[in-house]
Amino acid sequence: MQVKDVIARIIEKKKDVGGIKEVYYAACGGSYAAFYPTKAFLEKEAKEVKVSLYSSNEFVHNTPVSLGENSVVIVASHKGNTPETIKAATVAKGKGATVIALTWINDSPIVSEADYVIDYSFGPSKEISKEKTMNALLTAVEILNQTEGYEYYSQFMEGRSMIDSIVSNAQKHVEKRAKQFAINHKDDNVIYTMASGAGWGAAYLQSICIFMEMQWINSSTIHTGEFFHGPFEITDANIPFIIQVSEGSTRSLDERALAFLNKYGKRIEVLDAKELGLSTIDSKVIDYFNHLLFNNVYPVYNEALAEIRDHPLSTRRYMWKVEY
Amino acid sequence: MQVKDVIARIIEKKKDVGGIKEVYYAACGGSYAAFYPTKAFLEKEAKEVKVSLYSSNEFVHNTPVSLGENSVVIVASHKGNTPETIKAATVAKGKGATVIALTWINDSPIVSEADYVIDYSFGPSKEISKEKTMNALLTAVEILNQTEGYEYYSQFMEGRSMIDSIVSNAQKHVEKRAKQFAINHKDDNVIYTMASGAGWGAAYLQSICIFMEMQWINSSTIHTGEFFHGPFEITDANIPFIIQVSEGSTRSLDERALAFLNKYGKRIEVLDAKELGLSTIDSKVIDYFNHLLFNNVYPVYNEALAEIRDHPLSTRRYMWKVEY
Repeated sequence: MQVKDVIARIIEKKKDVGGIKEVYYAACGGSYAAFYPTKAFLEKEAKEVKVSLYSSNEFVHNTPVSLGENSVVIVASHKGNTPETIKAATVAKGKGATVIALTWINDSPIVSEADYVIDYSFGPSKEISKEKTMNALLTAVEILNQTEGYEYYSQFMEGRSMIDSIVSNAQKHVEKRAKQFAINHKDDNVIYTMASGAGWGAAYLQSICIFMEMQWINSSTIHTGEFFHGPFEITDANIPFIIQVSEGSTRSLDERALAFLNKYGKRIEVLDAKELGLSTIDSKVIDYFNHLLFNNVYPVYNEALAEIRDHPLSTRRYMWKVEY
Repeated sequence: MQVKDVIARIIEKKKDVGGIKEVYYAACGGSYAAFYPTKAFLEKEAKEVKVSLYSSNEFVHNTPVSLGENSVVIVASHKGNTPETIKAATVAKGKGATVIALTWINDSPIVSEADYVIDYSFGPSKEISKEKTMNALLTAVEILNQTEGYEYYSQFMEGRSMIDSIVSNAQKHVEKRAKQFAINHKDDNVIYTMASGAGWGAAYLQSICIFMEMQWINSSTIHTGEFFHGPFEITDANIPFIIQVSEGSTRSLDERALAFLNKYGKRIEVLDAKELGLSTIDSKVIDYFNHLLFNNVYPVYNEALAEIRDHPLSTRRYMWKVEY
């Protein structure tokens, strides 16, 4: 079923109990990051509906009192088998909430805990306009548009129709510099990522799922607005940063952090959404496309880095290998 | 004016426009961290009122559309001169919201942008029950109690009356191990902090304001629930972690992460709220006191670390020294 139709059906069903009042997103790791733009979207654009984003086990153990029949809980698990996320769905259903599960595998364990299942495009030839982050965003956009109304709905859908070619061009654009980045950073034991706004989740994902998980490189995600209130004191000529210069409302935060880095740092990799072609998307909705852009440009860097470090992205020492 | 009276007055004034519908917290760095428990409190306990927490400049540039006459915006700036936070207050007032400023300096610039000012206890002999984090928490507790009602109000106030002696005992309790920690970590170039639940902000503050800002040690805050979805792959015998084992609803997340660290790591410093005496506070409200405990125990470690590293906590290379 299309996301639009799923939401329409939920709204119809909730008519008698007073409609949708709360939207909760719960997932872990990369799926948590994929939900960040949706949380940012509703947090900024919604007048009435409440939104929160939880790491799944936090949702399970620290469940909000407002969870109930007016709630929609949207969970995501790539293979549909993340225990904490399955449990989050179970907790949600137990409280009378409606559960939507995003998963790549349609007969996975999480499916039986969900009222509705939404799959998505994944893999080397995936369509960005149908990938997990986009389908997650659509749940938020449709909920807002079908309840309060969303003034920029058509601009959003137009942006969606443009994102595949933007990403494809951007990936080609960074190929050469990604190889250079890999050479420059092959021996580093720490790399920071920086971001702000709705695109922050892409930097978080790069930090925890790639540098830490797949390359065993120390990392942290610094919010470019928080940078000047503590983290910037770490800056020197040796510390490497990857900074997302986003398009949209928080670009000035990123530019300010970059100006500082250019003055006092030496090892700065800039991912600039403007340079990477995002600016053709309408300014009223562009914020929400930063994640899709950056999250699909990082892999060009990651493959180059993994190759030169002789540390394949699939290597794990604990995940799926030991009990935890 | 007491927090309780400030909130009562705001509610009275907003009667004609439909009451308080949104509460926004905006601050930077350490003050942002101090607001984390308040955000966690309303996110969990409130049935109706919306809450969000912003780094100030994100609030300024990424302003939510629901900001308006039904909003209360609570900002914090220790010396009352943080430009982004002053701007956040200005933006809020411009949209018709009511602004409460928490500041230590009663005639600071932020005061003129606020409708109400709340000061707090600070310094070597500060009262924990009157410090910034507690007064911030009180804004949330009073808003909830005076609008929807808060079932555990009396338990919360009882917890507040107990926190000073709990912290004082805990500080003494860790003195010896803090000295050992300093010896063991004096040459480290990375130290992780870990936490979950309403106490997460204390780990964030330790990471960005102490390790990065005041000691120039690389750091990141890992959510104990997210740990197993990426970050745990960094674990080995050499990587140091400080883990907050909280009391309350997310303790099991922290215990699970600690069990893994004890098995696969070697350099783990445990701050256990149970061992540190927090458990005498009622279990219905104990979550919200973790930050006050941990945030006041870290300084014992920090002073020992600064001394042995011959790197005073007051040393800066950029903050207040260069333009940024």
